[in-house]
This record gives sequence, structure tokens and C-alpha cells, in this order.
Amino acid sequence: MADYEHIAVKEDGDTVRITMNRPSRRNSLSHEHLTELLAAFEQAGTTAATGIVLAGEGPVFSAGHDFGDVASRDLAGVRELLRLCTTLMRTIQSVPQVVVARVHGLATAAGCQLVASCDLAVAGESAGFALPGGKGGWFCHTPAVPVARSIGRKRLMELVLTGDAVDAATALEWGLVNKVVPDDQLDQAVDHLLVRATRGSRASKALGKQTIYAQLDRPEADAYAVALEVMASASQMPGAREGMAAFLEKRPPEWPD
Amino acid sequence: MADYEHIAVKEDGDTVRITMNRPSRRNSLSHEHLTELLAAFEQAGTTAATGIVLAGEGPVFSAGHDFGDVASRDLAGVRELLRLCTTLMRTIQSVPQVVVARVHGLATAAGCQLVASCDLAVAGESAGFALPGGKGGWFCHTPAVPVARSIGRKRLMELVLTGDAVDAATALEWGLVNKVVPDDQLDQAVDHLLVRATRGSRASKALGKQTIYAQLDRPEADAYAVALEVMASASQMPGAREGMAAFLEKRPPEWPD
Amino acid sequence: MADYEHIAVKEDGDTVRITMNRPSRRNSLSHEHLTELLAAFEQAGTTAATGIVLAGEGPVFSAGHDFGDVASRDLAGVRELLRLCTTLMRTIQSVPQVVVARVHGLATAAGCQLVASCDLAVAGESAGFALPGGKGGWFCHTPAVPVARSIGRKRLMELVLTGDAVDAATALEWGLVNKVVPDDQLDQAVDHLLVRATRGSRASKALGKQTIYAQLDRPEADAYAVALEVMASASQMPGAREGMAAFLEKRPPEWPD
Repeated sequence: MADYEHIAVKEDGDTVRITMNRPSRRNSLSHEHLTELLAAFEQAGTTAATGIVLAGEGPVFSAGHDFGDVASRDLAGVRELLRLCTTLMRTIQSVPQVVVARVHGLATAAGCQLVASCDLAVAGESAGFALPGGKGGWFCHTPAVPVARSIGRKRLMELVLTGDAVDAATALEWGLVNKVVPDDQLDQAVDHLLVRATRGSRASKALGKQTIYAQLDRPEADAYAVALEVMASASQMPGAREGMAAFLEKRPPEWPD
Repeated sequence: MADYEHIAVKEDGDTVRITMNRPSRRNSLSHEHLTELLAAFEQAGTTAATGIVLAGEGPVFSAGHDFGDVASRDLAGVRELLRLCTTLMRTIQSVPQVVVARVHGLATAAGCQLVASCDLAVAGESAGFALPGGKGGWFCHTPAVPVARSIGRKRLMELVLTGDAVDAATALEWGLVNKVVPDDQLDQAVDHLLVRATRGSRASKALGKQTIYAQLDRPEADAYAVALEVMASASQMPGAREGMAAFLEKRPPEWPD
Repeated sequence: MADYEHIAVKEDGDTVRITMNRPSRRNSLSHEHLTELLAAFEQAGTTAATGIVLAGEGPVFSAGHDFGDVASRDLAGVRELLRLCTTLMRTIQSVPQVVVARVHGLATAAGCQLVASCDLAVAGESAGFALPGGKGGWFCHTPAVPVARSIGRKRLMELVLTGDAVDAATALEWGLVNKVVPDDQLDQAVDHLLVRATRGSRASKALGKQTIYAQLDRPEADAYAVALEVMASASQMPGAREGMAAFLEKRPPEWPD
């Protein structure tokens, strides 16, 4: 494991646990913090782990960009920062592992974007979600991208225009998170969901996740063109062969990868 | 009516009732079964019927693809099977009739895809919905296409990654079905929805359904470009003329088609 | 203020209140009515106002197109009418102000399209929402465009195919409106939401709203391409600079525009 300053990374069986670990900065996403998160996800993506949990240490999940970092940057500098941030978000979607956000406390701006970008999310009852740029002077343009793809339009507009936080129950109703539990059951609920979400053939699941993001927000005919060819090819992979054979022979499968 | 082995087709007034009828195979969708379903929808599409009900006989709605059929196929063979399956799904959307899924018991993989592909769906309380490929070895790539366009992203990811079934109440909350009723009221609820959904000018409604699918998942400006021209042309059709005249003359309309 | 016949326009502090004011015609959207609404939104868009409220006077919000106007038009005439209507809907999204629909009574066809096209919507308990063309002879093709982008697919199909109205509570559950209150609290709820939605830097919020609509229904990678460049540029605007400086200096911001 690399030596990180802003985050903690732990391999735990089939799971890599990545924890934002700057409580005193409310896990705000400075350039250095983002660089470490990206490196950790890229590194985890090359391992045999089946799942990744993204969590935050301290009073909040993440407060989003670090204004101390942004304020001193010119256009080229901010663009570079946002490219890094966007690359992180896209990497979360492109790693072969199932990524679950473990959210307690506030997830704000790019912190809320992290939640929307993870495959799955479990929230403690203390969690809150906000895109607060709209009530300030720097609108949450890029955080709104994955949030817009997770919740309905009117709800998105309420989040981005008011900047106010919604609570965990509202986030569940809107579909921004998969489950809400009391904070003291959060770790257990994350692990339970992760077990359910990482069963089966690892190679098949990795291909599945990545194909979902390739087809997700395209017109239906285009989406079918992608998904059909992948699914046909996938039928010839060892995992599919073994899964079908085990089913037909009424025995438990032994995944080849 | 053609002579079918895997399905039953019944003309019932203005409604064609298509029933998957291989309870012993849990209505799994072998190549032969898909071929019959496609033929039945294409045939129904040429009739003067205004509605089609898709149902399943036996303990489940449909278990999805038939692994006995898939396991023996090479890449070209599976591709052909999936093309047939996709053509069926797209045909359900392109026939001029309103198509309602009548769902009892489990609707799994391509069975769940059928529910997502029908215009409307009514579920009995016994219904369950799953994309189980993710917990096996062959991910539900193509079933995820219409399901992704019916429910939110985090909920889709939970379905495809865990492979676990959600119950009818959850499917209703997520927007995968329109209504849930006790199983013994399922036929009545389907017919009630069908009556409401097939009123009015037949030609106008057929054009409406087909235009919805043409504009549904495109950028808003593109969608308007399609819908505007169709709506302008449609205003000159006999149905529109009669509807407006009847409204203005305060009399019941007499639909010309 | 221009002299309007079909609508009333009032500047009220930072808010422009546009009220459809043909109760005897159930605020149906004749060519003249649409022309006035478009002029009012374009005019309001040039002012320093931060918010616009769209309301209706009389028993309903709006009954949609005026069949007395449509019935006499040929193809070119209807196309021109629908282009005007579509331009109005797109203008509501492109003006720099936050636009809130204040909905009481029925919002039907193009009236429902207005609600879907506003950034935010608050409904009184008396409100109902319908796309009734499907049960008549002229299907609601263009109204379905923004409604399809606000609610789920099965719910859209139920609205357009049945033509029946759903009540305010259902519209809230489906995400077509942001809030439902008793009718006698409607003005207060609209103003409360508007205050929350119009805080912060005016220029930043206007850019934010317009960028949301530019990225909203495009594939995620395309959306990021738009949002990233806008957000980088926006970081150099006076509002963003002041917002960050105020935050870092722990003082209230003074918005420069």
C-alpha cells in the first residue's frame, strides 16, 4: 500500500476500504487529497478485491472542494483541479470492483458528487446531502452531473438552486442512496450490501458494471447495441459457462476467476 | 390464430391476450418460445385490437432465458438468440396497441425485461422482480437496458449487482410497475387500466405511443423536434378534427378509426 | 410593463409575477395568450429580477391549448402554434431567473407542460395534472417531452395513455412538483421556496441554471465536458471570488452582481 497523508487505505479480505481522513479539514478535497483518492482507486482497481468501500473519518463525509485551494488558482489551475476531480469520479465507475459509499454526516458539493458516483450508497441517519454552490458564488456545475443522473429533475433543481441539505430519508426516497440505517449499524449495513453485491463470478460482475455505465444514459437503441454484443460475448466466458452448467446440473458453481 | 406450442393467444373483444404457457419450464424464454412471442406480437400488431395483455401461466411470470438453450450455443448462436429477444422487446414498444404486463410471481432476467418493456404493468402482491445474472456467471446486460430507463440509477445498480428480487411494493415505489393489487384482483385491475388506456381515437393513440418511444430518451431539444412535427401533422388527422369538433360542439366524439 | 390582455405581470421586489388571467377560458393557451406569455418571460429575462412566479387566475391553472384556436388551423398554422408554444417552454428554461410554477386546480396538456418546464413547482392540494390528449383525438405529443424528463417511464405512459388526472400527492411522489401545501398556504410556500432558491450571486445562479439544462439529458461524459469548462470559467467570476474569500475570511459575502 502506498503511503498516504490524506486518506487511509486498508485491504480487508476481498474489500478495499478507502477512508477520507482529514477530519480537521472536514475531508475537503484539495488537489493533494484528490490525487491520493485517485491513486487509491486506481491501485485498488488492479487488485483481486471484489469490493471497495469509500468512507469519511470525522464529523462529516466530505465538505467538497477546499476553497483555500481553489481561491488561489487561475482558470488553468481550476480546470486542472476539476479535471482531476472528474477523473476520480469516472474512475470510481470504471474500476472493476463494486464501490459502496458509506455516508455519515454531511456530503456536500463534490462530497455529494462522490456519493452519486459510487455504484451503491448506504447512509446513516445523520447523513445529509447538499449542493450548496447555488446559495454562494460558485455553482455546483460538475457535482450536478452525476446527481442529475440519480434523482428526478425537479428534485435536482431544488438541490442545486436552494443549496439546502436534504436528510437521509429524503435521499432514500429520491433514490440517491440505497439504504438508510441508524449510524451505529452503518458498517454492518454496508458490509451486508457488499456481500450481496459481490457474489458470483468476479469477471462477469466487473464486465457487468462497466457495461451498465456504457449504456446507461444513451438512447435505448444505442444501449441495446452495446449491451447485446457484450452479453453475447460474455456467454462464452468461463464464468457464464460454469454458471449455466452448475444451474443445469443442480450443483453449486465454482467460479473460475 | 396461429397454432402455438409455448404460448396461448386469445382475441377477447378489443384485446389480444398473450399468455406464456410453459409452467413446467417456468415460462423460460427458449428460442422457440421467443419466436412464438414475437410472432404473436407482430400478428396482434396488424389487428384492429386496441390493447394487448402479456401474462404468464403457472407459478411464475417468466424465469428469463432458458439456460438449457443458451449453454449449447456458440457466440454466433447466442448473438442470434439475443437479437431475437431484443427484437421482441422493441416490437412490444412499436406495435400500435397499448401493451400491459400482468405480473404474478417472479419476473426474472429477460422476464423482468419484458415487464420493463411493456407500456404499462400491473403486479399482484405475489410478484417479485430480479436481474439475477449478477450473482451468477452471466450478467443481465440486455435486461438492464429497459429496466435502467424505468427506475433510478442507484436502484438499478442494486438490482443488477445483488441479483436479489424486490417485491411488488418496492417495484411500485421505484416506478417499475403502475399498480399493485392482491393476486385475486389482478385480472380486474389489468382490465380496468386497459379500458382507461385504450379510450379515444385508435389511430391517435397508436401514433402517440410510438412517438413517445421515439423521443423518450433523447436530449430535450431533439425530442421536441420529433414531437412537434408529429403533433402538427396529427392535428390534421380525422381523429383530432373530430375530437376538437366534439369538444367545441359539446357532444360525444365519434372516432373515425 | 407592456399592456397585456390575457395575462397580468407584476414586478414585486426581486420577483416578476406572471399570471395567466383568462379564467373564463380556463387559461387556455391561444396563440395570443402564448404570445403574451413569451413576451413576458423574454421581458422578465432582461430585468434584474432573480425569480419569476408563473400562476393562473380562476378555477384552474391552465387547460392547455385552445381548441377553438387549433381547430381552424391547417398544418402550417398548427406547426407555427406549436413552435411558439415550444419556444415559450424553452424560454422558461433559458431565462436567467429561477422560475417557480404556482399550481392550483387542474394543469392540463400544455398547462401540465408549463409545470414540467418551470425550474420548480409548488402545488396546492386542489391541483391535478393530466395529459388528456390520449383519451381524445389529439395526443399530447409535445407536452410529454418535459413531463417524460421529470417522472419515470411507466408513470409517463400511464399519464399519456389514460389521459386521467393525478392528484397533487401523486405528482409529489412522482417528482413532478417539489412541494404540496393546502391551497391557502400556496403563496407563502411559493415565496419561501423562491427565497431559498434565489440566494447567492445572481450571475452565478443564472449560469448555473442554464448549464444544468445544457447538460441534463446528455450522456454523462458529454455532460461533464460542458459542466467542467463552465465551472472552471465560473471560478474566476467576481461572485465565486467573493464567495470563497468571504468563506475563508469567515464573513458574510457581498455579491458583486
